[in-house]
Amino acid sequence: MEPLTTLSVEALETRVTGILQTHGFSAPNAQAVAHVIVAGERDGCKSHGLYRLEGVLKVLKAGKASGVSIPVVHDTSGAILEVDAGGGYAPASFVAGKEALVQRTRELGLAALVIRDCLHFSALWHDVEALAEEGLASLSMCPSYAFVAPSGGTKPLFGTNPFAFGWPRRGPHPYVVDFATSVAARGEIELHRRAGKPLPEGWAIDAQGNPTTDPQAALEGAMLPFGGHKGSAIATMIELMAGAMLGEFMSREALDFMGGGDLLPRHGALVLAFDPARFAARSGRDPLAEGETLLTAIEDQGARLPSQRRFATRAGALARGITLSEAEWAMLGRLGQGPSAL
Amino acid sequence: MEPLTTLSVEALETRVTGILQTHGFSAPNAQAVAHVIVAGERDGCKSHGLYRLEGVLKVLKAGKASGVSIPVVHDTSGAILEVDAGGGYAPASFVAGKEALVQRTRELGLAALVIRDCLHFSALWHDVEALAEEGLASLSMCPSYAFVAPSGGTKPLFGTNPFAFGWPRRGPHPYVVDFATSVAARGEIELHRRAGKPLPEGWAIDAQGNPTTDPQAALEGAMLPFGGHKGSAIATMIELMAGAMLGEFMSREALDFMGGGDLLPRHGALVLAFDPARFAARSGRDPLAEGETLLTAIEDQGARLPSQRRFATRAGALARGITLSEAEWAMLGRLGQGPSAL
Repeated sequence: MEPLTTLSVEALETRVTGILQTHGFSAPNAQAVAHVIVAGERDGCKSHGLYRLEGVLKVLKAGKASGVSIPVVHDTSGAILEVDAGGGYAPASFVAGKEALVQRTRELGLAALVIRDCLHFSALWHDVEALAEEGLASLSMCPSYAFVAPSGGTKPLFGTNPFAFGWPRRGPHPYVVDFATSVAARGEIELHRRAGKPLPEGWAIDAQGNPTTDPQAALEGAMLPFGGHKGSAIATMIELMAGAMLGEFMSREALDFMGGGDLLPRHGALVLAFDPARFAARSGRDPLAEGETLLTAIEDQGARLPSQRRFATRAGALARGITLSEAEWAMLGRLGQGPSAL
Repeated sequence: MEPLTTLSVEALETRVTGILQTHGFSAPNAQAVAHVIVAGERDGCKSHGLYRLEGVLKVLKAGKASGVSIPVVHDTSGAILEVDAGGGYAPASFVAGKEALVQRTRELGLAALVIRDCLHFSALWHDVEALAEEGLASLSMCPSYAFVAPSGGTKPLFGTNPFAFGWPRRGPHPYVVDFATSVAARGEIELHRRAGKPLPEGWAIDAQGNPTTDPQAALEGAMLPFGGHKGSAIATMIELMAGAMLGEFMSREALDFMGGGDLLPRHGALVLAFDPARFAARSGRDPLAEGETLLTAIEDQGARLPSQRRFATRAGALARGITLSEAEWAMLGRLGQGPSAL
């Protein structure tokens, strides 16, 4: 059995922050990035945990992102707040814009946060969970890389375009859902390829646009959206709203700009926030109490609410620390040596 | 072959308006309802065309809706506009609130229209198409009746909860998509039952929560959301945002209030509008031109854009009129006799 190392969440965050600074990140950027990476690891989201660190560092080394940019908040004086990330990593931009978004949402009932030209690598649940903790409902979406074909199409055009929704609850955790609008994550196709296992039906098409279960043919062809033409429409909506509407890259432009999908994508992001207290005010009803009626009815059927497993894993990590494998620990040691380790 | 009757769109709208007035609708309510019903017929959406007329009249006769209520627009002085439908039919409320929504969206960048306590029977594409014609992107959603089980659940809880998205285009028609978040419409299950045909796998569960292809068992059990847990999350979002958040009925409450699913549901509705010109302003890019890049790339793959068939059918109807079957023509004659015909 592999020897294991256990650290507190704080200690791991400090360690990751230090590694990022060794690679040239400014302290605020390093802290914001380390926070979301360690939060992923803490919650058992391995695909958005420490695994992401090397990719975050590689894109910086490739000169395709900035680790020192200072996000600039621009207030359009309406319901839109913008943060110019300047090629920096998204977490610092969300931190920079969040308080203004919360205030504007409480003031107007709803508001939007636009993040421009950011390096996006984190799960979207961070954003909607943070807003739910302020009592706000929210949607978050962004394009990614053009790896997914439209329903009925033959070529990659959409990203795996994640979509998240958060709803505040009075208990310890909000309702948070966050998913890719592709049937599967690209990493899952790669894992099938390495394992020599065929893909499930319906995940992908080959370069000629025919259905395939061959992982290599899928990687050379295109992934498919979840839910057929309905999921494809949601992926389209995300390209239009979080790409075209903002005047930021859509998934194909992001791929062209980065010259391939090996590095993390650079594009914009859109967060929409809603104040249930404002929306419900004239009804005389308590929107959060109404929400509980629905959510407890889901659980009473034995159906799982999204994020419940994540919250349970988090509770364990906060109580007992995060346990790293020897390989993970060695990776941190290697990356801690600086850019030459990449 | 059945004899056919062909009327112009205007003539059919006048005819339907008259029938509604015969049943006690005020002129503005009759016109708004007739407009959306005839638009459905014009576009070849038979499920939201003349077929709907009898249901619209029955709920009025049952005393569960108002045909004379005057929608009242309430301005929260923020980004939320509300229309109190007062138990009236949704189309007049959308008409009443639309101009204020457009103005507020242009002013702030985004805004919401809340419709309270309306009788909702129309497809959502009406709303998002009308806003796209003003140059705005929009989302529209509402609950319905609790006929759909959550993914992993066993009992009906969600409605078929429609979701629509509209995006403005410079050509003759906007991008418009509108779909139920259930795998199939309830009417399709009823059609399978009448035809004695089994359902496709994955449409429904029986009253014990087990998968079924028996239409009768499905009607006594629950329908399933599209796209597994991801579609289920979108159905949940619609219950929370267009039900709980507004302090209006969710789908289970709508069913309880109406005492069953035979009459059309009464609940609220939420429309979110976005001004791409405002969102893109600082980017220096043209959001509609960017949108065309995506939409033409979808079409260039041979994939169909949603609503294209509907727009083509519309063009034919506008040029050559709407052709009704003898049965449809007889139905109009019968309903024109007033409430005693129901």
